Amino acid sequence: MLLNVPSKLDIVTTHERIRPFINRTPILSSDKINEICGCEVFFKCENLQKIGAFKARGGINAALSLEKDQVKYGICTHSSGNHAQAVALAAKMLGVKAYIVMPSNAPKPKVNGVIELGAELIFCEPTLEARENGVKEIIEKTGAIFIHPFDNYDVIAGQATASKELLEEKPDLDAILTPVGGGGLLSGTGLSAKYFSKKAKVYAGEPEGAADAVLSFKSGRVEKAPYIKTIADGLLTNLSEKTLAIIMETVTDILLVSDDEIIAALKLVFEHLKIIIEPSCAVPLAALIKNKELFKSQQVGIILSGGNVDLSQLIF
Amino acid sequence: MLLNVPSKLDIVTTHERIRPFINRTPILSSDKINEICGCEVFFKCENLQKIGAFKARGGINAALSLEKDQVKYGICTHSSGNHAQAVALAAKMLGVKAYIVMPSNAPKPKVNGVIELGAELIFCEPTLEARENGVKEIIEKTGAIFIHPFDNYDVIAGQATASKELLEEKPDLDAILTPVGGGGLLSGTGLSAKYFSKKAKVYAGEPEGAADAVLSFKSGRVEKAPYIKTIADGLLTNLSEKTLAIIMETVTDILLVSDDEIIAALKLVFEHLKIIIEPSCAVPLAALIKNKELFKSQQVGIILSGGNVDLSQLIF
Repeated sequence: MLLNVPSKLDIVTTHERIRPFINRTPILSSDKINEICGCEVFFKCENLQKIGAFKARGGINAALSLEKDQVKYGICTHSSGNHAQAVALAAKMLGVKAYIVMPSNAPKPKVNGVIELGAELIFCEPTLEARENGVKEIIEKTGAIFIHPFDNYDVIAGQATASKELLEEKPDLDAILTPVGGGGLLSGTGLSAKYFSKKAKVYAGEPEGAADAVLSFKSGRVEKAPYIKTIADGLLTNLSEKTLAIIMETVTDILLVSDDEIIAALKLVFEHLKIIIEPSCAVPLAALIKNKELFKSQQVGIILSGGNVDLSQLIF
Repeated sequence: MLLNVPSKLDIVTTHERIRPFINRTPILSSDKINEICGCEVFFKCENLQKIGAFKARGGINAALSLEKDQVKYGICTHSSGNHAQAVALAAKMLGVKAYIVMPSNAPKPKVNGVIELGAELIFCEPTLEARENGVKEIIEKTGAIFIHPFDNYDVIAGQATASKELLEEKPDLDAILTPVGGGGLLSGTGLSAKYFSKKAKVYAGEPEGAADAVLSFKSGRVEKAPYIKTIADGLLTNLSEKTLAIIMETVTDILLVSDDEIIAALKLVFEHLKIIIEPSCAVPLAALIKNKELFKSQQVGIILSGGNVDLSQLIF
């Protein structure tokens, strides 16, 4: 195993640390979706997590893992949304300041979520460079400590607890699927499957219009997507060195899906599970439906990553 | 207590009978909604129940309580939606035919749900008379046995199990709120609060545009609504003798809300709980928000009754 990668004990300890602050999210299923998929699917509903996304797990764990002295000037991050809310929530819990650098095109409910949690918001151009520069400035000015959205073992260990919980309730899963953006959830899920399951293989779904992880998984290097064009706004980032290394060792495959397939899966979840998810969150179900033969008659877990969608655009 | 009304033991036995066939639905909460309401609200998510509504509980219980010989020619009912699906599901479980008389204006997802469960569908004019005549014809023609949507103690005992589960997990509730249509859920909740809680008072929310229950509650007789005009399509029916008698004895008050208040509550649930509910289901939250002072700083349970809304009209 790689040096410093979260161990089984690390993930168990992480779970104990964050348990009082997170929701034990329900696991739902639907006969209709099982029929469509040709297998038994168990949905771990992280859209019903605090701040509406699994990111609460990693953000809270990373913040709680820091020494009191380290966080006295606050914590900061850059994020298009859900990790931003996670860091804002963690700061509120710790009673310290949060500084969030957000791209100017971040979805409104994610922006509002951060504001309502009392964080200081700094908007930037929607590029990785602008985000990173924004954070650098904040650190220099305030002394706040940076919590990376995924290239951080405490964050990865936090995200790993979602599939740990899933496996506690469904120990016989043959496979677990997650979406992949920066790879925090996917690498954490890979670790949990390795540590807490005898047989569960881990797969990711990735949008065709942000297909960096599938390339990185083939080459073994952090690659960029050939082009960015997808409805799945939470999955635009590349992997990092830390997440890629874990993914190479623990993940079976990364499956590409189109935006049409993502939207069809999103509708199925709205209609048959009666819950609200964001487009990124529908990606693993889309991948499962596209690759039915791979999962035929199996027990499959899907981590539903989040539900922070702009309903005013969709509905009202 | 009234003769033949379900006893505590009846409800416990009912719960054991239907437990293998229903979902133990999750209980969700939201800091934001708590803040808005000025109390702690626990939502029992029956929109995540089989067939997307609490009605699965009563329908399945009523069907399973019949002798094998009684159901050999099938079961039948009239319903605008959720009870229809419950009876169709119960028939499928028992391997007998289901005949459903549905008003021609029933919401599409509820119609589709019934068809997908393999029931025989008979459309009628959207009046109570037409529905009842439709059922009479079916019984004469087929010998099927009628399961009333609410004027049936086995149905009431089934609906009572939702708040029994809620009280098992939240024994210190000060109040429980439900919507009221025919009164099956409300009377069942009244019984469960009486049997399984030391202090929980039971309230109903009712739409101003279908205000029969509030009148019946005052007069002690089954009254009709002065007029029918509401978005809450599941709450149009009057109470029955059986449900009214239990409600008179176990319910504290019935609170009226406008359609605007229902829509505002619906939005809160979509945004902050990340789940899909139908308009009828938002009525008790609307009533709570309108009467905050009644529930100030209390622990309040709300039965979210169902999620069968036509998403194609709302969203896609």
